[in-house]
Amino acid sequence: MAFTRKDLLGIRELSIEEINTILDTAESFKEVSARTIKKVPALRGKTVINLFFEASTRTRTSFEIAAKRLSADAVNISASTSSMSKGESLVDMAQNLQAMAPDVIVIRHPSPGVPHQLSRMVTASIVNGGDGAHEHPTQALLDAFTIREHKGSIAGLQVAIVGDIMHSRVARSNAHLLTKLGAHVRIAGPRPLLPVGYEKLIGDSEGSLRVCADVDEAIAGSDVVMMLRIQRERMTDAFFPSLKEYSIEYGLTLSRLERAAKDCIVMHPGPINRGIEISSEVVDSARSLILDQVTNGVAVRMAILFLMVNRDEA
Amino acid sequence: MAFTRKDLLGIRELSIEEINTILDTAESFKEVSARTIKKVPALRGKTVINLFFEASTRTRTSFEIAAKRLSADAVNISASTSSMSKGESLVDMAQNLQAMAPDVIVIRHPSPGVPHQLSRMVTASIVNGGDGAHEHPTQALLDAFTIREHKGSIAGLQVAIVGDIMHSRVARSNAHLLTKLGAHVRIAGPRPLLPVGYEKLIGDSEGSLRVCADVDEAIAGSDVVMMLRIQRERMTDAFFPSLKEYSIEYGLTLSRLERAAKDCIVMHPGPINRGIEISSEVVDSARSLILDQVTNGVAVRMAILFLMVNRDEA
Amino acid sequence: MAFTRKDLLGIRELSIEEINTILDTAESFKEVSARTIKKVPALRGKTVINLFFEASTRTRTSFEIAAKRLSADAVNISASTSSMSKGESLVDMAQNLQAMAPDVIVIRHPSPGVPHQLSRMVTASIVNGGDGAHEHPTQALLDAFTIREHKGSIAGLQVAIVGDIMHSRVARSNAHLLTKLGAHVRIAGPRPLLPVGYEKLIGDSEGSLRVCADVDEAIAGSDVVMMLRIQRERMTDAFFPSLKEYSIEYGLTLSRLERAAKDCIVMHPGPINRGIEISSEVVDSARSLILDQVTNGVAVRMAILFLMVNRDEA
Repeated sequence: MAFTRKDLLGIRELSIEEINTILDTAESFKEVSARTIKKVPALRGKTVINLFFEASTRTRTSFEIAAKRLSADAVNISASTSSMSKGESLVDMAQNLQAMAPDVIVIRHPSPGVPHQLSRMVTASIVNGGDGAHEHPTQALLDAFTIREHKGSIAGLQVAIVGDIMHSRVARSNAHLLTKLGAHVRIAGPRPLLPVGYEKLIGDSEGSLRVCADVDEAIAGSDVVMMLRIQRERMTDAFFPSLKEYSIEYGLTLSRLERAAKDCIVMHPGPINRGIEISSEVVDSARSLILDQVTNGVAVRMAILFLMVNRDEA
Repeated sequence: MAFTRKDLLGIRELSIEEINTILDTAESFKEVSARTIKKVPALRGKTVINLFFEASTRTRTSFEIAAKRLSADAVNISASTSSMSKGESLVDMAQNLQAMAPDVIVIRHPSPGVPHQLSRMVTASIVNGGDGAHEHPTQALLDAFTIREHKGSIAGLQVAIVGDIMHSRVARSNAHLLTKLGAHVRIAGPRPLLPVGYEKLIGDSEGSLRVCADVDEAIAGSDVVMMLRIQRERMTDAFFPSLKEYSIEYGLTLSRLERAAKDCIVMHPGPINRGIEISSEVVDSARSLILDQVTNGVAVRMAILFLMVNRDEA
Repeated sequence: MAFTRKDLLGIRELSIEEINTILDTAESFKEVSARTIKKVPALRGKTVINLFFEASTRTRTSFEIAAKRLSADAVNISASTSSMSKGESLVDMAQNLQAMAPDVIVIRHPSPGVPHQLSRMVTASIVNGGDGAHEHPTQALLDAFTIREHKGSIAGLQVAIVGDIMHSRVARSNAHLLTKLGAHVRIAGPRPLLPVGYEKLIGDSEGSLRVCADVDEAIAGSDVVMMLRIQRERMTDAFFPSLKEYSIEYGLTLSRLERAAKDCIVMHPGPINRGIEISSEVVDSARSLILDQVTNGVAVRMAILFLMVNRDEA
């Protein structure tokens, strides 16, 4: 399939064909990181800028390694939002970077929509590396890649997403992607962290997404259980009484996991809080694909960088 | 022309021939960043260290991209002056870096003259990336490149430089360069920010540089208007009453620009403060070459890195 | 000799043959940094992660340059221990990095033993870049390389190590290495900074290591004098009355150095405190090999990265 998209801003706007093209391309790149010489010349002479307004060792490292294994020149910029007055200066910063002729700018920013603004300002490809609580499309794509790798396909699977749904860009991007590809998604979490009307938010009109009253209902019979990270620093907001109680009510344990399908797989976007949203036994069990996700993250990001740079004319 | 200079410390000491060699070389490198494969092997196996004692995303990024497009290995060091006792430890730090056999060290430092000290201590080429209020030679060279690109030559042009002249290394390097190349330079700004005897400072004995009483006098008939950035953090020094008043008295607006030559071009070293020293309308007008300056910055820095490393024997 | 070791965690566990293999390999790599094109393709397509939990411009830069001159992809991560809860999360961080398929992880960490823990968790090679007061094996290897380069061999030499022995990973790694290679080591320093039973700590049963009552006794007749850096920030612990007194009692001056052998060489791991543990005259004298150590550091680290990646099957 021809890939014509300049930017990867979110899952919402991707077609099923585009998603499949990215996943298929990632499959062919995954093998590169398993070679003795983990490098292909695909993006030689291209410039990839990692522009991070939030600290993120793992995502930045994953993109940097992806770029380098494609032989691109990777340039890291850690910016702070405090040093920028909003609005106009984002324009100016973007145009400035553009003037140095990068091919791709990966941006992570605490405010939703910033990658979209950026994409309208520059001719370089923009990859959304996470924008506030909005989207984190490369995470959802690597999750889909990992599920497909283990389950063959995504259509018809039952997937539980559990945790702080409201603040999670991972949950949102996954809800978009999984329902598009025909999975049945059940979400669960503390009531104050479940946005009202999430089905509508996701644009689900076919009943593919269901908000569950409790975690056990969401997990029952699931083929995939996706746990979200609890941001400890949000504890003060008092969305739930204590970490201990959260762990009892929503944490994934081996016994809770028995309600899921026999061959259920467990995922987490990381970094994990062992003993809080997920028990150590589950993390270290054969069902856990948490490290596969990280490995696949490099492959998926290689695919995205490659497809953006080598897109077909629209 | 043979290029024999080990270091680029300032514009002051450059001959007209050297300046022209750098600008001509930059012309041939500019095309590299416009290619599909933006990379030439010119500096393969060379090591370029970016040693920044002041935060500067844009200048550091420009040098890093320049180095990588020449296939050099770029190593970034952000140092803090607080962690160094002055004097001896600069010697030791320099000799240490030298011992790792870099080819070029780009240094930015808040104290004037530090690049010059460094240059006497090491055999690597030193490029001054800005030293206090002293010089910023690569900025002046990219400015000259941009003017030449649009005006054909610099000799005979009338150039206005407006703003905080006293603290501006950009103004100083440009004043040196433009008068050397035969331009007529007029400077203007708030009186407390105009150094007494600036003509002498610049070593101008032929009346090529004139300090003007107000901004309109400087701009009248100018072929080039170069606006300087107001450092908001210096506001507390009370060099002028308020940003608003500065903007009214010295800010470049479309109406003020009408006093300039019909085909006048507008420049700014960035980052810009829209609505303060320059209005948004001017920034976004066809006369503004602000983004051309950024693009040319990469080409000029490629030329400088290349010439330093491949200099002829003196 | 076949080199089969996956990790370089400390000198303690290295055999004499392994040490010699590293030093011999470093010899062949030293010449690379003296070439016009300072780069060999030995580690093309390999990924080296520099994971630093302590700030260290010089060691990080040395490893980064070593990796790049071998054509490896170098990725820098500066981590903070404060952002990690201990124990489990080190496991998770390590496994995460591992999942991105690095070939080597260089780690510096304030806690002794962390590189060893890491080595059991990942299949990538771990190089200890300094762990607390425990070991700093690449420093000892570059020191040995430097001594061998100037003295021909290490066996039979008399080496003085002077300073804060207790907190020094450099002293400990050197004590292991030098006694293994047959040198006679004498240590000296303020009594509260001399650990009781240091001979046993080093595992010396043949009397190769001797704790001396004062610095002059240690230096008398020495072929090598190795001065340690005083950590000024430890002054508050009141291990000695003042810097001035330390300098008088333990600082290396030209006159004190006259007690050493006529062709004695002087070393220091850097960064140096001129006028405190070592006088400027000594630093700048022909006997000082401090900058040779830095140059050799790049060669030794190239050798280590190369040997780890290209190790023979055990």
